Order: sequence, then C-alpha cells, then structure tokens
Amino acid sequence: MVNNKKPHIDLSPIMSPKSVAVVGASAKPGKVGNAIMQNYIDVGFQGKLYPINVNAADKIMGFKAYKSILDVKEPIDLAVISVPAEIVPKVLEECGKAKARGVVLVTSGFAEVGRIDLQDRIVAISKKYRMPLMGPNCLGVMDTRSRNDTLFLPTSKIDRPKIGGVSFVSQSGSVGSSLLDLISGEGFGLAKFISYGNAAVIDEVDLLDYLAHDKETKVIVYYIEGVKRGKEFVELAKTATKLKPVVILKGGMTPSGASAAHSHTASLAGSSQAYEAVFKQFGFVEAHTLEDLLYFAKIFDTQPLTPGNRVAILTNGGGHGVLATDALYNNGLVSPQLNKENQKALRKIMPSIVNIRLPLDIGGDAGSDRFSAALDALSRDENVDAIMAITLFQTPGADESVANAIVEHAAKKLKPLVAVSTGSTYTRSHVSLMEEGGVPVYDSPDAAAKALAALISYTRYKQGMP
Amino acid sequence: MVNNKKPHIDLSPIMSPKSVAVVGASAKPGKVGNAIMQNYIDVGFQGKLYPINVNAADKIMGFKAYKSILDVKEPIDLAVISVPAEIVPKVLEECGKAKARGVVLVTSGFAEVGRIDLQDRIVAISKKYRMPLMGPNCLGVMDTRSRNDTLFLPTSKIDRPKIGGVSFVSQSGSVGSSLLDLISGEGFGLAKFISYGNAAVIDEVDLLDYLAHDKETKVIVYYIEGVKRGKEFVELAKTATKLKPVVILKGGMTPSGASAAHSHTASLAGSSQAYEAVFKQFGFVEAHTLEDLLYFAKIFDTQPLTPGNRVAILTNGGGHGVLATDALYNNGLVSPQLNKENQKALRKIMPSIVNIRLPLDIGGDAGSDRFSAALDALSRDENVDAIMAITLFQTPGADESVANAIVEHAAKKLKPLVAVSTGSTYTRSHVSLMEEGGVPVYDSPDAAAKALAALISYTRYKQGMP
Repeated sequence: MVNNKKPHIDLSPIMSPKSVAVVGASAKPGKVGNAIMQNYIDVGFQGKLYPINVNAADKIMGFKAYKSILDVKEPIDLAVISVPAEIVPKVLEECGKAKARGVVLVTSGFAEVGRIDLQDRIVAISKKYRMPLMGPNCLGVMDTRSRNDTLFLPTSKIDRPKIGGVSFVSQSGSVGSSLLDLISGEGFGLAKFISYGNAAVIDEVDLLDYLAHDKETKVIVYYIEGVKRGKEFVELAKTATKLKPVVILKGGMTPSGASAAHSHTASLAGSSQAYEAVFKQFGFVEAHTLEDLLYFAKIFDTQPLTPGNRVAILTNGGGHGVLATDALYNNGLVSPQLNKENQKALRKIMPSIVNIRLPLDIGGDAGSDRFSAALDALSRDENVDAIMAITLFQTPGADESVANAIVEHAAKKLKPLVAVSTGSTYTRSHVSLMEEGGVPVYDSPDAAAKALAALISYTRYKQGMP
Repeated sequence: MVNNKKPHIDLSPIMSPKSVAVVGASAKPGKVGNAIMQNYIDVGFQGKLYPINVNAADKIMGFKAYKSILDVKEPIDLAVISVPAEIVPKVLEECGKAKARGVVLVTSGFAEVGRIDLQDRIVAISKKYRMPLMGPNCLGVMDTRSRNDTLFLPTSKIDRPKIGGVSFVSQSGSVGSSLLDLISGEGFGLAKFISYGNAAVIDEVDLLDYLAHDKETKVIVYYIEGVKRGKEFVELAKTATKLKPVVILKGGMTPSGASAAHSHTASLAGSSQAYEAVFKQFGFVEAHTLEDLLYFAKIFDTQPLTPGNRVAILTNGGGHGVLATDALYNNGLVSPQLNKENQKALRKIMPSIVNIRLPLDIGGDAGSDRFSAALDALSRDENVDAIMAITLFQTPGADESVANAIVEHAAKKLKPLVAVSTGSTYTRSHVSLMEEGGVPVYDSPDAAAKALAALISYTRYKQGMP
C-alpha cells in the first residue's frame, strides 16, 4: 500500500456489511436508535439486522432483539452504536469480544466537547480488538449498492441519491447531509457517502486510501476543515489523484473561517496558501464553493478526459453564446474556429441566417436535426477539444427530440460534452432527461465553463502536462 | 427630465395599454400572430383586443377581426406587429394613421441581418407619427399588473412570474426569456419584462428613464451587450441609481466575448475596463453571471439597505458556519462579535453545548425557539449590521416552524436578513415558504454573501460613503 505509515484498514465490513448489529436500537420514535433501525428498513438493507438493547423485549420493529451483542451467535460485520457517551466504552468492549469487524459510533460527547479522556478510551478499545471505528460524533456511512445506510436522518427530510460513481466524504455532518440531499436532486449517482466525525480511529487518510482503490468509486469528493496526518495525506494523494479525480473543498481557508473551523471541529487550519499549493502540486481538483463540488462531481462522473482547452460553443440563443464566450475566457479556455471542411459542410446544412462561426448560434427555431448535424461536425473537428451545447427550451424549436439528440451524441463519448439549460418547469423536465442520459447539465454558461476548466486542468495533471 | 438630449418617450401605452391591436393575428397554430393572440387570452389580458389580418374572416379566436387597423374605430394604445418584414412599413403607416399610441414590432429581418434600409424606413415612420416603437427583432414586453404580454413563447414552455417589484430588461431575447422562466421559479415577483431587440427607436436609455421613475419598479435588472447612447445612459444613470438599484450584466466583457457580441447584436463592446469603471463610478450593481442577477434581484426586492458590513451568521450546522465565514471574508464582509449583554442573554437561553460566539451554531436539534431567540439578540446588537440565517432542514430540529420563525422575523425589516438552505424535496418546500414570506433564500453561503456584499456596496454608494 501507498500508505505505509500505518497498517491499511479494511473498511469493507463498515461500508458493505452482510450483517449489522444496531446497538441502542429502540422501538421508540424520536430515539436515534429508532431512526437508524427505521432507516435500514426503509432503504431495504439486504443483509441481516440485529437490534441490541439492554432493555430489549423479544423483538424490536419486527426483528429478534438481543440484550447484548454477545448474545448474537452469528458473525457480525458492522456494529452501529448510538448509546449515551458514558456507556460507549462498555458496549464497545462487548463489540470487540463479539468479534464485530467494524464499528460506526454515531454518539457525540467526546473530544468535540472536551472529553478527550473518553475518546482516548474508545481509541484504546478499538486498537485492542483491531476493530476499525468510524466516528464518534458522525452520521456514518451510506453505500448505495449494498444499501448499508447508518444515517439517522429520516428519508422524509433528506432524499437518497441513486447508485453511481461519486463517493462523498465529509468531515461535517451538516455539510454532508445537506449535500447528500442536494446530490439526490441531481442527475448523477453516488457510490459511497461517509461522515467520519471526530476521526478518532478512521481518518481522512484511511478514507482516501480506501476510496482510491474502490472499484465502484470513479470520483472522490471531500469536504474537510483540517487534516490530522498531513504528510501521509499528501503522500497518498500522489497516487490517488493519478488513479481518479479527487475534488476537495476545504472550509476555513480564510483567517476568520479558520477560526470558525477551529471552534467547529478543532481543526488547525494551516495557511490557505500552503493548502492551495499542496492541492495544486498533488493534482487535487480544488472547489471553492458548495456549488463547485456539484459542478465538478457531475462532469468527472460522466465525461471523458481531455487536456485540450479549445471548447466549441453550440447554442440556440445568441445572448447565451456571448456569455459562454466570456465564461470560457474567464476560465482560461479558448473558443476555437472550425476547420474549412466543417465550415463548408455546416454551410450546406444550416439555413442561410446561421453564421458559420464559433460560438455557433443555430437559431431559436433549431430542432434536433440542426443540433445533431452541428454536434457531428464539432466532434470530428481537430480544432475542438470539448463541446458546450446550450439548449434553451423556451425557444420554439427545442423539445424532447433536442434533449434526446444531446443524449445520443454524448453516449458516443467522443469528446467531453456539457449542456446548459436555464429555466423552470418545462426546462427542468428536459434537464432531467439529459442528466439521466449521462449529460452533465448546468444552469449557466459560467457553471459549465468552470466544470470544463476543472476537467481539463485535472487531465493535464494526470498526463504530466504543464 | 434627466434625459434632456431627446424628448422623453411615454412608454405607458406600450407597457400597460387599455387596448391592443394584434397586427398579423392568425387562427393558425404555429404562426407568431397566433401565439401572441393565444398568449393574451391565456394570461387573461384585461383590456380590449383587436386581431388584425388582411385575410381576416369575421372573427379570429373568438374576437371580432379587422382587415386593417384603420377599420378599428376605437382608440388603440398598442399595436403588436408580427407581419413579414417587407410588409412592416405599410402596416406601420396604417398604425400611424390609426393613431396607435405605441408599437411593439416583433418581426426580425432588419438591421440584424444587414437590412439597415428597411430599419431606417420604420424609424422614419415612427418619427413621422411620433409613435414610439419597441423592436424590431424582439420579444416585446410583459407587465404583470395589467397582464399585457406580447411574448410569443407559449406558457407551456416558459413559466410566468408572479407580480412583484423587479423589472428586467434584456437586449437578448434568449437571455430574457430563459431568465424570465427562471425568475418564475424563484420567490420574487416581476413588475415589467422588456426585450427591446434592435432598439431602432426605443433604446436602453429610454427604458432606464422610464423604469427609474416607474412606481411599480423597485429594482431594475439589465442584460446588455452594448449601449448605443453611452453618454446619455451614464448621465441618466447618475439619477437612476440614486433612486433605485440598477443591477447590470454586460455580455462581451472579454475580448473573445466582445467579438461574439458584435456578431450577435452588432454591439461595439468598448473596453471592459471602461465599462467596469463606469458601473462603479455611477453606482450600478455589476453582475458577473446569470446567477448573480438572480442573487442580487431578490435581496434588493425584499431587504432594507445597510451600509455596514458586519454580518452575523446564525446556523444549525457547523460546517455551513465555517463556509459562511469564509464567504464573508472573500466578499469583503466581516463576522463581528456580539456585545456582552447579548452574550449573557443568549448564554441563559441556549443549552450549554452552544458556544456563544459568531458564527452562532445553535445545533442540529435547534427548533424555532432557539432560532427566534437568536434572531432577536442579533437584531438588537449594535455590532451587527445584517444577518445570514443558515437553516438546514435535514437536521432533526428544523421543520415548518423554523421557516415561519424566519419569515416572522424578516417581516419586521429590522436589518437585512438572508437565509441559506441546501437540499432537495423537503428543503425546497420550506425554501418556498420562506421566499413567499419575503425572505431571500440561497443554496449556499457563498451566494448569500455575494448578495449581501452587493446590497451593502450599493447602500454605501447611495449614501455617498466611500
């Protein structure tokens, strides 16, 4: 393993367990142990579920209940613990004795409130039994494929995303859960979600190690406020970012933000210049806002890489073409010109009112025929590295067939392709069509240009280009 | 009038006519003259409607039809013309003879395709009859109060916004229509929408003059690619921006964007530095993206002004508090500290786990009681100029009562208040509640900080502060 400072931690029992003990399970609504049970039921977990409660009756929520995890005679992959902080050491010992292969400790009241003593005790127990532990003070994990989901936030308040290739790691539970919810409304799917809280045992280094080698993860997205093992994180990143894109948003990059971060997660922020330099040197894709995280995740999830920065703009609205050209320039990208051959070919196909130059404005009456012909020409033109297709569905010509034409073309994966559609009801239904078809769609040319710039910049790093 | 270089044009017959002649009206779906008629019917226009078509039968779409506008013996405020370009001079002459008080000419095929001769002819006719003319090559106007709506884009493709105080002027039809649609999905309402096309007669100067003095317009929002009468626009802006905020997004601010703009609207862009200097000097609120236009429009539409840059962050999620603190810093704003009295008051109210400092993280279990108490304290604190309330609805404590608490507090208009909520279905329904209650809600702390910075910067200009 790349991470040679500490033994590699096998996270598979935590991420995709075949059996889960819910320690602190409760039939009483409002209790965290009830929300966790309910959630496993709601999302349709495929493995075995063992509710554990010292006061348990025969059954909890339809499942045979146990007074102690030691009473379960079957093998247990994951123990999810939500008992009060003072009792945690006791039940954690029992988990160790029961040979649980991993723990998610959601309970708070440890180092984050000054109880470093209590946190040290659980770290010691985890080490004694070589039992990896996520948390404390975390939401835990979600794995879309195995439907392992330790979240204690009800599905009525937070949507669950579809299965996909993006794995999202958040040091903050609230940033994690709100973004998880937001991602559910987007077109791309999730592989893993991890809220790791105080990182008493499993930390951001272990997670990067795991996700870098996880076959289901195509893109890694991080929200962090600080890194505890900085050298190892960077060392590992050298390999990880060559394997797949690692998008990172760091909270506390400003002096006042750093002070807030220290108060929040006790993170020592370090200088923002130092972080930015490291992100750049080791090929991280740095996000500056929550929006960036989404913009970047969806282009990396769906589009092929390219090191070239010549982006052809295709549009059915002139103003958007102008704004897109500005946006390319502002993001270090270039609006190229078509080769002579393609200019001639398009001149023959397009009505005389269409000016054959980039940005290529094919008119408000353009339907799928014009979009398809233009996409074909742009894809075969050696002057074009990537395509931004602006599809405004308010126009007379644009309907479902235009959305389908974009999806069909994107499926060929000839060049990176992003779409831009600005609007409400009618537009959004067509945006969904395109996103379900694997096309990343953005509200504005600026968002699309930012995403393309991130894709190109990462490709250049990966291919060793300046 | 401020605009003393040219007679003041009365736009009220065009914006809120009592009678409209639709010249080129047609019963045939697919025709522009049909879409315009259908639209007047769909939006429930309250005035009189006269369909005009040289081949007209008795009635068109249920309305008595006329072969010529000269056959209508009633007074006509507005003539909306959608006949082919070559016929326009003839029907425009008839409009003049019929004493129409204003014209919206939607037909294209004039200066934008090199037919400067044809455009010169219509300008001459407009002058001869002193008949103000909007267009050609435009979508025309929408006035939410009189329900005058010349748009020929069907309501099935583009939502119509509710009544409000934002007036939006767009040189580009596609930017105009897509943003109009997007605005419809936002919480704020529209006063007027104007797509003015080639600006052959009525141009951006006349529109600024009109909207600056329009009582229904609280905020003016412009998308432009160039200004024809630069000196007069600037001269007028001196007064206009003191009366109300003028948010402006200029397409073609980069060298390549300027070239695209020239091709699109024949706008000579001028240097971006010159534009930026003018925007700054004369108090325009400059937007750099389509997103900015929305962010800024909704804060100016609903919130009181303040020149102070000390923004108190209130949050029920720690990570968002950190990101918000970064966002304030990045936008030139400051996270202050509370006065001693309020610190003591909040210490008594809040649970011990809440750290009494800004950003004020009141915890994931915070309900409306804690939000209300915190908002009260922040509002009476002389160290606080504005408030960013982060309400994450994924948290166990947040529900409808929290949204209501924010709305109730905002209604007092004590200090500018913006909310931040990141999420999908459950969150969005609560965002709607808050926006309907007059609270501008943003997806991210960055968007909210940008909006606050624009509000504060504009207030300082208006109040003559450096």
